[in-house]
Amino acid sequence: MAKNITPRAKDYAQWYVDVVREAKLADYAPVKGCMVIRPNGYAIWEAIQRQLDRMFKETGHVNAYFPLLIPQSFLEKEAEHIEGFAMECAVVTHSGLAQSDSTGKLQPKNKLEENYVIRPTSETVIWAMYKNWIHSYRDLPLLINQWANIYRWEMRTRLFLRTAEFLWQEGHTAHATAAEAQEETIRMLHVYRDFVENYMAMPVIHGEKSEGQRFPGAVATYTIEAMMQDFRALQAGTSHNLGQNFAKAFDVTFQNVSNELEYVYATSWGVSTRLVGALVMTHSDDDGMVIPPRLAAVPVCLVPIFKKDDEKARVLETAQRLARDIRAQGLDVRIDDRDNVTPGFKFAECELYGYPLRIELGPRDLEAQQAVLTKRYSREKLTLPLDQIAAQVPEMLENIQRDMFDRAKTRLTEHTREVNSYEELKEFMQADGGFALVHWAGDAKDEKRVQDELKATHRVIPMNGVKEKGKCILTGKDSPQRVVFAKAY
Amino acid sequence: MAKNITPRAKDYAQWYVDVVREAKLADYAPVKGCMVIRPNGYAIWEAIQRQLDRMFKETGHVNAYFPLLIPQSFLEKEAEHIEGFAMECAVVTHSGLAQSDSTGKLQPKNKLEENYVIRPTSETVIWAMYKNWIHSYRDLPLLINQWANIYRWEMRTRLFLRTAEFLWQEGHTAHATAAEAQEETIRMLHVYRDFVENYMAMPVIHGEKSEGQRFPGAVATYTIEAMMQDFRALQAGTSHNLGQNFAKAFDVTFQNVSNELEYVYATSWGVSTRLVGALVMTHSDDDGMVIPPRLAAVPVCLVPIFKKDDEKARVLETAQRLARDIRAQGLDVRIDDRDNVTPGFKFAECELYGYPLRIELGPRDLEAQQAVLTKRYSREKLTLPLDQIAAQVPEMLENIQRDMFDRAKTRLTEHTREVNSYEELKEFMQADGGFALVHWAGDAKDEKRVQDELKATHRVIPMNGVKEKGKCILTGKDSPQRVVFAKAY
Repeated sequence: MAKNITPRAKDYAQWYVDVVREAKLADYAPVKGCMVIRPNGYAIWEAIQRQLDRMFKETGHVNAYFPLLIPQSFLEKEAEHIEGFAMECAVVTHSGLAQSDSTGKLQPKNKLEENYVIRPTSETVIWAMYKNWIHSYRDLPLLINQWANIYRWEMRTRLFLRTAEFLWQEGHTAHATAAEAQEETIRMLHVYRDFVENYMAMPVIHGEKSEGQRFPGAVATYTIEAMMQDFRALQAGTSHNLGQNFAKAFDVTFQNVSNELEYVYATSWGVSTRLVGALVMTHSDDDGMVIPPRLAAVPVCLVPIFKKDDEKARVLETAQRLARDIRAQGLDVRIDDRDNVTPGFKFAECELYGYPLRIELGPRDLEAQQAVLTKRYSREKLTLPLDQIAAQVPEMLENIQRDMFDRAKTRLTEHTREVNSYEELKEFMQADGGFALVHWAGDAKDEKRVQDELKATHRVIPMNGVKEKGKCILTGKDSPQRVVFAKAY
Repeated sequence: MAKNITPRAKDYAQWYVDVVREAKLADYAPVKGCMVIRPNGYAIWEAIQRQLDRMFKETGHVNAYFPLLIPQSFLEKEAEHIEGFAMECAVVTHSGLAQSDSTGKLQPKNKLEENYVIRPTSETVIWAMYKNWIHSYRDLPLLINQWANIYRWEMRTRLFLRTAEFLWQEGHTAHATAAEAQEETIRMLHVYRDFVENYMAMPVIHGEKSEGQRFPGAVATYTIEAMMQDFRALQAGTSHNLGQNFAKAFDVTFQNVSNELEYVYATSWGVSTRLVGALVMTHSDDDGMVIPPRLAAVPVCLVPIFKKDDEKARVLETAQRLARDIRAQGLDVRIDDRDNVTPGFKFAECELYGYPLRIELGPRDLEAQQAVLTKRYSREKLTLPLDQIAAQVPEMLENIQRDMFDRAKTRLTEHTREVNSYEELKEFMQADGGFALVHWAGDAKDEKRVQDELKATHRVIPMNGVKEKGKCILTGKDSPQRVVFAKAY
C-alpha cells in the first residue's frame, strides 16, 4: 500500500502529494488550479466545520449566506482591497451560451452591463448589505459568519494548500467602538488557536502580522503560524481588525449612544480547507495519514482475522459486540469484514487512511479473550483483555491526541531559535530552517529583501513573546521584541 | 409588528415577500437575481441540512466537493443536458482585472483558452472524475453527495423560490446494474418524502414526472409535490435515474462480474433552499413565520414580564430555572429579557419569527406558580403549573408538529379532486385551483397546450395512485391511471 508513497526523506513535496492522493483525500480536477475533495478529505473538513461552528456559536455568532458574484465596482470601492485581489479574480462577463451563426459553436451570448467577479473574499458585498441593516447602536454588534467557496486564480496548484477554489468560513462583524472591534479580533484569534491546538493537535505561535503582510484593507492582521515537518511555517488562520475602512468605503454609519452619526467598526476572520493540508504535513508519515482522534470521523478500525467460515462467524460475532460497546461510549468503529483482501492489506489500508486506533481480533485472540490494539501515530502495540477494551478506548484516544500535540510541540520548540545577525539567519535558512526569532524593525521593502535573498518571510510578532529590546538584524534600528522569520507555504 | 405584512387574502404573492423580509429570512442582494440568506433563514437551512445529512449517511452516502467551474466543453458532451442549461449559464471568460491603457478603468485582463460556466448542476464534472475512480464492479456502488451553491441565470427573482444562485445538495451515485440505479432513485425519493413530511410537516404526493418534465439527460425523473396555501404545487425535491447517459458521454466503463466492460449506471437527486420558501408558504400566516418544532433551532421563546426592578429579579430567576429544566430535555430556549421593549412587542416578534411555543411569565404567574403557554400555529393558550412545564414541553412540541402536518394534509386532501374533462379542468383552474386528478395520455406538445391555455402543468404520476384505467381528457387515448395537473411555482 505505502509502496506508492515517496518517503519524506527522499522528496518531501512529493511525499505530501502522494499521501493526499493515495489516502484519497483529494484529486486534481479537470479545471485549471482546482481540486476535488474526496470523501476521506471531506470527512476531515466536516469534523473541522463541526467543532469550529460550535465554537463560533458559543461566542455569539450566527451563520448567513451572501452572493457568490460581486459587482466589479464593489471591489473597487476600497483601494487596497482591489489592489490586493484584482489579478486573482475570475471574471463573469456573459450570461447564456448560444450557437454562433458563423461557426455553429456555442459562444457566450449576452454581454453583462457590469462584470461580476467570483468572490475572492466577501467584505465588499457584505458591507453593501450591512448598510441596509445597521442604523443605530441597537443594531450592533452584528456577529455573522459564512461557510462558503472562494475563488482566487492560482496557477501553481498544491492540493489543499494552494488552489484556485477553496472552501472556508469568513466571519464579518460590525461594532460600535474601536475597542470592541479589537476585542473581537483577538477573541477569534484565540478561538482559532484553541481549535487548532486542541483538535488538530497542531501547536502554533500566535500574534500580529507585520504591516507588509496585512490583509488588503485591514488596520491590523493577526495570525496563528504552525510548523510543518520540513520546518516551514504555515499560516493556519487569520483575524483582521478592519477599523472603519469598509464602513467608509460603503458609507455605513450608525447613530451612537450620544445620538451622533459614526462609521461602524469591523472585523473579519477566516480559516480554510488549507487546514486539511496542514494536518497532513504536521502528523502524517511515510505510510500515510495520521489523523488526531478528535478529528477522526471514525477513530477506531477493527480488523477481524479469519480463514475458515466457522472462524469468521465466531470472530465477527465478538467483533460486533466489541464495536457495539465502543459505540456506546460515543465513538464510531469501522469493522473491516471484507473477504476478498488479506489482513495484511487491511492493516496497511488502516495505516494509509490514518485511523487513530486499530484493533486486531483473530481466533487465537478469541481463545485468550484478548485483542491487539495499535496506535497509528506511534505504532505502539498493546494486548488487552476483551472485556476491558471498550472502557479504555476513550482514554487511549485522548492520550493519543495529547501525545500527538506534544510530539508536534517538541518539533516546534526544537526548531525555533534566537538568531542574532543577518549572516546567522542566512545560515539558519540554508540549513534545516525553522522559526528564527530575530530583532526586526524593517519595513515592507526590507522584508522583500529578506524574502528575495533567503526565501524567508516575516511570519508573526509573537503575542506571548518576551518583550526584550534589541537592534534590527538588517537595519540596526531599535526593535521592541523578537519576531519570527521562516520559509513558508 | 405584523402591520408590515400584507394579508394573504389581499395579495398572496406580496404576503410571501413580506413574511420573508419582515421575519428577516432573506433580503434582495445587490446582484441581479440573487438573494442574501439572513441568519433567521439560514438557521432553517441548517436544520434542514442537519437532518438530511444524517439521513443520507444512514443510507450509506458520503460527502465530497467538486469544482464550482465547469469547462464549457464538458456541458456539451450530453446533448439534452447542454440544451437544458445553456441559456442559464453564467460564463467566466477572463482571469484578472487590470487598468485599461485607454480609459484607465479596470478591465478583464487575460482571456481564457476555454470558457468556464458556473455549475448549473454537477453531473458533467463529477462524471469526468468518476472516469478516474471507477474501473471494476468492486469500485461500485459509489454513493456521493455534495452540499454546494448553484447558479442558473434567472431574471424574475422570488426569494428562496427562484433565484439565480441557490444552495442545495446534489447526490451523484454510480451503480453496476440498471436495477440498482432504479432502486437508489426510489430510495432517495422516499428519503425526501420522509424528511419533508416528518420534519417540515409538509405532506406531498410522490411519483414520476412526465417525459416532458424530465431532468435534461435523465431516463426517469421522480418528484415530491407539495401544495401551498394558494393551492399551487411546489416541486420540493427530485430524484433522477440517469441510466447510462452520463457514463456514455464521459466514457465511464467498468469490468463487471463476468469480466466484460460495461457502462456504469447513474442517479442524481437534489433539494435546495427552495424548501425554505415552501416552508413559509405551507405554514405561515398574516402575523409572520410558523416554524414546525423539529426545524426550529430554538423551539421555545420565554418572555418574562416585569415593571419594577425587584419584579425583574424574581421573574428572571424563575425564567432561568424553567429554561434550564427545558434545556435539560434537549430543547433550546430563548429568554427575551430586553428592558427597552414592551411585552407586547416581544409577543409580536415571537409570532413574526415563528417560535413554535411561547411562555409568558409575570409577577402574578409567579404568585400562582404557573405560566401561560401559547402555541404559535394555532394561538391556543394553556395555563400550566410551573413545575409541570418542562416535562410537558417535549410532548407539546411533538403534538404541534403532528397537528401542523394534519392541517396541511387536510388542505391537500380538500383541494385534490378528480376531474373528468378538459372543460372541467378549465373551470377547476379558473376557480380556486388545486391538484386535479385527470386521465392523461398526451405528449410534451399536449402538455404545452394545457400550460398555455390553463397555466396548469403536469406535476406527477402518483406512485400510490389507484391503477384505474380511463381516457385522456385531451386526446381521448387510453390512460393507465390518473395524474396530477396543477398551477405551480
